[in-house]
Amino acid sequence: MRDVLPGEVALRDWAMAQILTVYRRHGFVRIETPAVESLRLLLRSDGGENEKLIYKILKRGEKLAAAGGAEDLADLGLRFDLTVPLVRYYAHNHARLPQPLKAIQIGPVWRAERPQQGRYRQFTQCDIDILGVASEVAEIELILATTEALAALGLKDLTVRINDRRFLGGLVAHCGFDPARAGSVFIGLDKLDKIGRDGVAADLREAGHAGGAVDRMLDLLASSATPAALRSLLRERVDEGVWRGLQRILDTVETQAAGRFRLVFDATLVRGMGYYTGPIFEVQHGGGTSSIAGGGRYDRMVGKFIGRDVPATGFSIGFERVISILLERGPGAEADAERVVLVFDETDEALGPVLALARDLREQGKQVLLEARGKRLGKQLQDLETRGYRKIGVLGAGGVVEWREPRTGAAGETSA
Amino acid sequence: MRDVLPGEVALRDWAMAQILTVYRRHGFVRIETPAVESLRLLLRSDGGENEKLIYKILKRGEKLAAAGGAEDLADLGLRFDLTVPLVRYYAHNHARLPQPLKAIQIGPVWRAERPQQGRYRQFTQCDIDILGVASEVAEIELILATTEALAALGLKDLTVRINDRRFLGGLVAHCGFDPARAGSVFIGLDKLDKIGRDGVAADLREAGHAGGAVDRMLDLLASSATPAALRSLLRERVDEGVWRGLQRILDTVETQAAGRFRLVFDATLVRGMGYYTGPIFEVQHGGGTSSIAGGGRYDRMVGKFIGRDVPATGFSIGFERVISILLERGPGAEADAERVVLVFDETDEALGPVLALARDLREQGKQVLLEARGKRLGKQLQDLETRGYRKIGVLGAGGVVEWREPRTGAAGETSA
Repeated sequence: MRDVLPGEVALRDWAMAQILTVYRRHGFVRIETPAVESLRLLLRSDGGENEKLIYKILKRGEKLAAAGGAEDLADLGLRFDLTVPLVRYYAHNHARLPQPLKAIQIGPVWRAERPQQGRYRQFTQCDIDILGVASEVAEIELILATTEALAALGLKDLTVRINDRRFLGGLVAHCGFDPARAGSVFIGLDKLDKIGRDGVAADLREAGHAGGAVDRMLDLLASSATPAALRSLLRERVDEGVWRGLQRILDTVETQAAGRFRLVFDATLVRGMGYYTGPIFEVQHGGGTSSIAGGGRYDRMVGKFIGRDVPATGFSIGFERVISILLERGPGAEADAERVVLVFDETDEALGPVLALARDLREQGKQVLLEARGKRLGKQLQDLETRGYRKIGVLGAGGVVEWREPRTGAAGETSA
Repeated sequence: MRDVLPGEVALRDWAMAQILTVYRRHGFVRIETPAVESLRLLLRSDGGENEKLIYKILKRGEKLAAAGGAEDLADLGLRFDLTVPLVRYYAHNHARLPQPLKAIQIGPVWRAERPQQGRYRQFTQCDIDILGVASEVAEIELILATTEALAALGLKDLTVRINDRRFLGGLVAHCGFDPARAGSVFIGLDKLDKIGRDGVAADLREAGHAGGAVDRMLDLLASSATPAALRSLLRERVDEGVWRGLQRILDTVETQAAGRFRLVFDATLVRGMGYYTGPIFEVQHGGGTSSIAGGGRYDRMVGKFIGRDVPATGFSIGFERVISILLERGPGAEADAERVVLVFDETDEALGPVLALARDLREQGKQVLLEARGKRLGKQLQDLETRGYRKIGVLGAGGVVEWREPRTGAAGETSA
């Protein structure tokens, strides 16, 4: 975990505000769940590997004294994503929530991972989810809202890749894998971007899958993996409605995107989580291969909590990844030009003039820093300019302000 | 801990944005520290009772296996306030921070308290702190910025009470208490608002303080506790500079406040925390006796971390208290009038017209919810009106929109 310095916090706050504005315009409402959930809940989700990375909270007092061994020391944990809490929230509160629910969540999650470059144990996730919409309108809305939010951050050149877990399931069966082990095939295939065809083939064989099935699947994906080709190949295994749904998403989004971003079918797209049941999607930025957002449909997750299935789709922006792209890019629209410093004499009993001037400037919307005059004024003014202040006023006797010219440090106009 | 429903989240987000805007105008910058800190850090602070309420995080893997008994099961904890993390942050990062540092912190903290009405185990704190300013300018800036932030939330009728820990220390010595036990006297006196004079007297006697000292102090505070009276009474014990500093704060703030809020000296004001070293202050709203914000000077806390004292002052808004006042007051300036619903036919293959119209409206800054037409349209429109939507368009064939009149549900103008 790490501290965030003021410059990056300002960028993060700006990015969050941009994203929230776009999502609210798309009719989403923000919800909040606590950081701490019951461990039983966290462990019964389909969170896969993430469940192993839960920070558990030690029981207290009598409960701790009564704990029966190492496995019984904790009954709470820090959330590792925002999807499990969302579903629990929906199950608890659905009678008081709008139906369908179009929810925004932005907040920290925690995973006890080994720290790596650019990855932290506390990081921010930024999700939108639609609970209660079975039609492809949900996927279409998620894709349009998320790409618009990313564009609002100045991220141009976006490619959305889309696939459907049901095609993947059909493909796995068609190639001769054991259908009961489809999840394991997905996990292997998910690494295609990173370790290439040979790596995936080796992994899948090592996991005990039949070599013939592995080769057949990788050949198919490498050659004719267009929707039309797969549709005819998997005619017996995948319902016609699934293909029509995909086509509706592709056609509608392409019209709406109007060239602002690309939407492409990608038969190799998998997504790691076990809970997806339909369309899945990811966003790439520029030439990068790693995704900056991802999501999909998970129609059977709510049912585990409330006993009846509720159609659900979600799209998550990789907030930390996005911030690191924005940091590399340098200051953009978020840099604030309206910052003013007033340098005054701290020992002067009469603070009235500087406070009154600061008040006036603040009422005009400016950010006004009051800074006590140091022993070396020239050095101090240079430091302030280095920190990005372009408008610096030095208060003299009787409240007279001498404004410094930007960058040069030379004296400029004088005003009372 | 609890879930927050969309309406309250919208209010919280609005309030946070108002506060942040005011604080940024006053030259403060937001910083972020992680939710999890080392337990050693949390336990060495002057957090008093709060230290007993820390949620501890269970060690993992080898560390847990090697743990030597119940006291050794955890080495991390959830922060219980934002002051301890601020000081740790300053100690770690001060070479990369502006000097002086004017920091904003808004974020959740956790305390394992018994849940009570209106109190939760996860709650938001909202602090500003100035590190590196020894003069009263710091207190003056904190008081002006905090009262302005509260006013921006629509909280009028604010009273700021101010005192100084050094007067309290002088008073305790003057009345004949054991100066080494001043902290215990402060804790007793802090309850004056809640349990009254007799309650405090009984508590202090029970804590082993001399009855004569208790009576003398309570008599003094009940009668002549003006700055001038105390100044002359404590001439031998409290430095003249302390009184001059108080007077400077009172005079300067009164001029700047210009009637927008009151600042009054209150010799009975204590504040619970052990770490205060100078002026302390609290804000009351309306006729309420409980405070909605509080703070003070804590010049010796940073020194514990970096070996040299750094003057420090802070002011914390009781964010949850403020939100509950705003919730009681009902919808205010934060209610959004720019919300539109478009009701469309989900089974219609051609989503183009509704998506294009939504896009136009969103580009005008409106929040547009797409809602699939249900089986009972009349009931659906009523529900939407109940949820606060005043502009509802129903899409018919060929993209024709029929706008409903607000509240009545009757058909209005029609546009293509």
